[in-house]
Amino acid sequence: MLVVMKNHATPEQIDQVLGAIRRLELTAHPLPGATRTAIGITGNVGAVDPRSLEVLPGVLELIRVTKPYKLASREMHAEDTTIRTPQTTIGPGTFTLIAGPCSVENEEMILRTADFLRGLGVNLMRAGAYKPRSSPYAFQGMGQEGLDILARAREKTGIGIVTELLDTDNADAVEAAADIIQIGTRNMQNFSLLKRVARARKPVLLKRGMAATLEEWLMAAEYVMAGENYEVVLCERGVRTFSDHSRNTLDLSVIPPVRALSHLPILVDPSHGTGKRDYVPAMALAALAAGADGLLIEIHPTPEKALSDGAQSLDFAAFASLVERLRRLAEVLGRTLN
Amino acid sequence: MLVVMKNHATPEQIDQVLGAIRRLELTAHPLPGATRTAIGITGNVGAVDPRSLEVLPGVLELIRVTKPYKLASREMHAEDTTIRTPQTTIGPGTFTLIAGPCSVENEEMILRTADFLRGLGVNLMRAGAYKPRSSPYAFQGMGQEGLDILARAREKTGIGIVTELLDTDNADAVEAAADIIQIGTRNMQNFSLLKRVARARKPVLLKRGMAATLEEWLMAAEYVMAGENYEVVLCERGVRTFSDHSRNTLDLSVIPPVRALSHLPILVDPSHGTGKRDYVPAMALAALAAGADGLLIEIHPTPEKALSDGAQSLDFAAFASLVERLRRLAEVLGRTLN
Amino acid sequence: MLVVMKNHATPEQIDQVLGAIRRLELTAHPLPGATRTAIGITGNVGAVDPRSLEVLPGVLELIRVTKPYKLASREMHAEDTTIRTPQTTIGPGTFTLIAGPCSVENEEMILRTADFLRGLGVNLMRAGAYKPRSSPYAFQGMGQEGLDILARAREKTGIGIVTELLDTDNADAVEAAADIIQIGTRNMQNFSLLKRVARARKPVLLKRGMAATLEEWLMAAEYVMAGENYEVVLCERGVRTFSDHSRNTLDLSVIPPVRALSHLPILVDPSHGTGKRDYVPAMALAALAAGADGLLIEIHPTPEKALSDGAQSLDFAAFASLVERLRRLAEVLGRTLN
Amino acid sequence: MLVVMKNHATPEQIDQVLGAIRRLELTAHPLPGATRTAIGITGNVGAVDPRSLEVLPGVLELIRVTKPYKLASREMHAEDTTIRTPQTTIGPGTFTLIAGPCSVENEEMILRTADFLRGLGVNLMRAGAYKPRSSPYAFQGMGQEGLDILARAREKTGIGIVTELLDTDNADAVEAAADIIQIGTRNMQNFSLLKRVARARKPVLLKRGMAATLEEWLMAAEYVMAGENYEVVLCERGVRTFSDHSRNTLDLSVIPPVRALSHLPILVDPSHGTGKRDYVPAMALAALAAGADGLLIEIHPTPEKALSDGAQSLDFAAFASLVERLRRLAEVLGRTLN
Repeated sequence: MLVVMKNHATPEQIDQVLGAIRRLELTAHPLPGATRTAIGITGNVGAVDPRSLEVLPGVLELIRVTKPYKLASREMHAEDTTIRTPQTTIGPGTFTLIAGPCSVENEEMILRTADFLRGLGVNLMRAGAYKPRSSPYAFQGMGQEGLDILARAREKTGIGIVTELLDTDNADAVEAAADIIQIGTRNMQNFSLLKRVARARKPVLLKRGMAATLEEWLMAAEYVMAGENYEVVLCERGVRTFSDHSRNTLDLSVIPPVRALSHLPILVDPSHGTGKRDYVPAMALAALAAGADGLLIEIHPTPEKALSDGAQSLDFAAFASLVERLRRLAEVLGRTLN
Repeated sequence: MLVVMKNHATPEQIDQVLGAIRRLELTAHPLPGATRTAIGITGNVGAVDPRSLEVLPGVLELIRVTKPYKLASREMHAEDTTIRTPQTTIGPGTFTLIAGPCSVENEEMILRTADFLRGLGVNLMRAGAYKPRSSPYAFQGMGQEGLDILARAREKTGIGIVTELLDTDNADAVEAAADIIQIGTRNMQNFSLLKRVARARKPVLLKRGMAATLEEWLMAAEYVMAGENYEVVLCERGVRTFSDHSRNTLDLSVIPPVRALSHLPILVDPSHGTGKRDYVPAMALAALAAGADGLLIEIHPTPEKALSDGAQSLDFAAFASLVERLRRLAEVLGRTLN
Repeated sequence: MLVVMKNHATPEQIDQVLGAIRRLELTAHPLPGATRTAIGITGNVGAVDPRSLEVLPGVLELIRVTKPYKLASREMHAEDTTIRTPQTTIGPGTFTLIAGPCSVENEEMILRTADFLRGLGVNLMRAGAYKPRSSPYAFQGMGQEGLDILARAREKTGIGIVTELLDTDNADAVEAAADIIQIGTRNMQNFSLLKRVARARKPVLLKRGMAATLEEWLMAAEYVMAGENYEVVLCERGVRTFSDHSRNTLDLSVIPPVRALSHLPILVDPSHGTGKRDYVPAMALAALAAGADGLLIEIHPTPEKALSDGAQSLDFAAFASLVERLRRLAEVLGRTLN
Repeated sequence: MLVVMKNHATPEQIDQVLGAIRRLELTAHPLPGATRTAIGITGNVGAVDPRSLEVLPGVLELIRVTKPYKLASREMHAEDTTIRTPQTTIGPGTFTLIAGPCSVENEEMILRTADFLRGLGVNLMRAGAYKPRSSPYAFQGMGQEGLDILARAREKTGIGIVTELLDTDNADAVEAAADIIQIGTRNMQNFSLLKRVARARKPVLLKRGMAATLEEWLMAAEYVMAGENYEVVLCERGVRTFSDHSRNTLDLSVIPPVRALSHLPILVDPSHGTGKRDYVPAMALAALAAGADGLLIEIHPTPEKALSDGAQSLDFAAFASLVERLRRLAEVLGRTLN
């Protein structure tokens, strides 16, 4: 952390800042310049509210130097992390597909989807039993009955289950049913929920918040890891910007910085990112080429009848065709679809 | 809702859309134009995923016409709503101040602050016992002990308490301690939490999400109202944009549309909106002039020692001076500070 | 400027950075810390592309400390600047109204508007002869004929003219006709145009770009001032964000930082900021309370017949009523309408 | 266009709207619904300011149905457009590389770069003679001397030249020197400049504005095409959002909607999009996979000595390696690098 003094700051003002830093039990390193003085700070700066210094007389601004996340950071863990479920792995060398309907609608469609996916060599199915809907009048998911259906689908087909946890009340049930627990974009900073999944024994798929910076996202991962659940998979699903040609702005450009700053795997969800079925395949291929570790994709046996998100769901034929295209691309890129 | 067909859409494609609308149990009104056909839809369109129609052959786009919120809408409730606590009211004719520290830090500072506020004629105090912090390593609030301190402060001084609820686990305790339950920006779409406070018997202060549209915000209010808690106060606290001169972009321009579209009162939080103490008074005065129903402001007996958000907290002298300026301005505007 | 090294940077990497800094003819100040080294840089850093250092081996990041603008900065010019036209002043103690139609449509409506404004005590009229329109098929303004009409209106009524310059081709004509030359939001970084008005002998009203940071805006002012035209008035007119309840997001929160960082006066344009007539008065009052130096407002004798921007124009009665409300508010705030 | 009436609108209010539509010489189609009436409008709605209707009594909102662009639209021109220069083509089946330094710095580096590119089979070189710089104190480009150097490089090596036009003053000179005239992001809505290049006999590379919607971008293309220069190449280069992990947010998700709505080719500039050399290759590969028609990439013989944008420039070795990776990927995707 660095305190930059105004160019007419007095020696007394500088001394006052040095004193304030020491009272915070940090070490101050004054750096006099030609026109102004800066003061470097070392020590446990993570726990300090930087702005308490920023308002002292003579201070121009305060600049944070070190990153506030540790466990999620590549500096602390140089090698890429591999996440394992009973069915598959997510991480280096592979490109993992997770597909399925937005919501569990009934047992038949879940079994059909699971069978279809297994036939394609896809090992993880996504489907929501608890749904976060912006309207209280919209379908809210099948709840526990949906979880039971997912558990039976896993039993019958061997497919792994990725399903969303909305609140601590249902945490035990979701943890039991899921192979990977999904935390949705609206809950990325639901810290009580993060602390709960930090105690889960299942990997956590952490979607990026709609307006989350990369630092905030990695800090959310840090919440989970600080509770000793180190199995976190990031998932980019589009952020909110002025741009109105798609439902959200899918930020594929976050992939290289995630790779540089963190060791955690990153998936991409082009279904929510674009909100439109026709745009999904192009973004799926782009995510693979950009270096993502896999995809989260919405498919539905009959998208036009889906209870939610039908317009962004691929039908089975379109998904099978996309998988084929991904497979050819992955080969050139030295990656294996799984 | 309106379906716009492409200009070369065939009669068969139009029939297919008409059929799809009927299968959704809605009424279709074809509107043939010179170069293309549009189809109006009436009925309970709120529960329909509009995009299921958007992907049918021949469809150019689908346009939502009616608003999805009802109870929060001024169309359903023409008069401004007044919210009452035992200590005061929020709504037409008044301008309500809610002030206090970011966090409960100890009993002494809470009592000092409550006494100070009562002395100024301020009837509601804000202070967090449970704190949503972006870092797991930062101070997370005093929890139940903090709530107890707030309850004692109310008992001793008669001041009303506004405090944040983070999760359903602590809902009973927070509901007991609070006169107004605050839902923070990160939880605006925590639907499980919204459903819980819909059952509370206390008013809810609903902060706007960091990237929430006005419609999403009113839909979040609708969640609370749909559970028959009609006492919702909106609070603008800054949204996330590219702009980097302040902590967030305080969107005062949302006030007139809120007034036009909803009957609920709206407060402004210039402390989080700007993130910088020096910028707070100007934005507080502007909020009053723009037509807000009141303010939520962070103050602290010794801001430079605050455990959180010190840089955006006013000290007592600065707040007293601001209240005096607000009082003079309110008088010209025909409003009474309370 | 500060170079932050990675925590495992080698002494050789540090030496390489020190050498690179020296080759840029700057002075390097190494600052060793417990876990990493930082290097302060002084000298003429404004002309350096900081990112050339950022990519050297062992460098974590590079942080800019000093502001790149000088002439526009309050550090260089402590007192508020007052801008003078033959008719009035803009700056401390006053609140200056500039009103008029979006476009010059004909002589009659311009004269009516000028007479009306003079009757209200308003000394500056805005109206565009050259119009930047997003569609090539939309009305592009009356051009030179429009400028002639404005010149005659000034002659007859004594009102000052604020009109937009779109390109260097028309610079002489616009400079001759205008008392203040307006640079529109789409041209804030049209550097050729900025260099041209830097040579003008008229004040420049510089609208903020739709996605301009405060620093970029002040740098655009710096372009004009670097050419020795020191008469720059800033004008906030709404920025582009995800928020869709208004045409743009009027960023009143930029006013306090502009005051803190610059000595230049700042106006607010609530007409473009909101895009909707009904929302203009609330934002106009808020701009005054927030500390702006004045307003730029669209009015029209018959808004429903306006050739452009009719929906955001006030009619004369609504404007007269707003002026009255502004006058009462200004009085309490110790400001004089002019 | 569709006018939606409020649910209590009176028959008189509806008649007033119908009259207003007719006075605009448009055709009104009333559509009565269960709770409210909507009114469809057909005719030449492009020239109408929609908001003149929106402010009439009883009107809830006004919705635009048809797109305002015609010549740029795929509805008007179903087949993909191919742009030809003397050296190469841009369009279906190919993937066109345009590379070179940010600025012309001297003849030697331009010739070295041109030779290097020709050796790799790249036929178009980018380099700026006139540079838009956010600081008036930064290097502004070599100007005419730079254009002369580019002309000689073309003569000696046969490489095509892509260079930026900043203002109408230099239009003749740039048009003479360039094979493709670049319009930069800050000038996307510099309508005077667009009208000037509409008269040029060279193709125009139109970069997306930093905060431009897709519609605004296509309208800017429409300006050029309306002047009968149909040779427009779009170029996505990153937009401005809250996201701070890269210089801009490269919006690859705009590619599928551009394909759907327009017949014009689209390139991607990952250098400006990311602002960081290390992130460029991943985004370049992703752009190809997403369906772009080519890339605009900054390279420099010695990036660490570049006068501008060195940090985002690839050196020759890194670029050669990227071209090789692109070639392998293009093959799988059925595209030919050129």
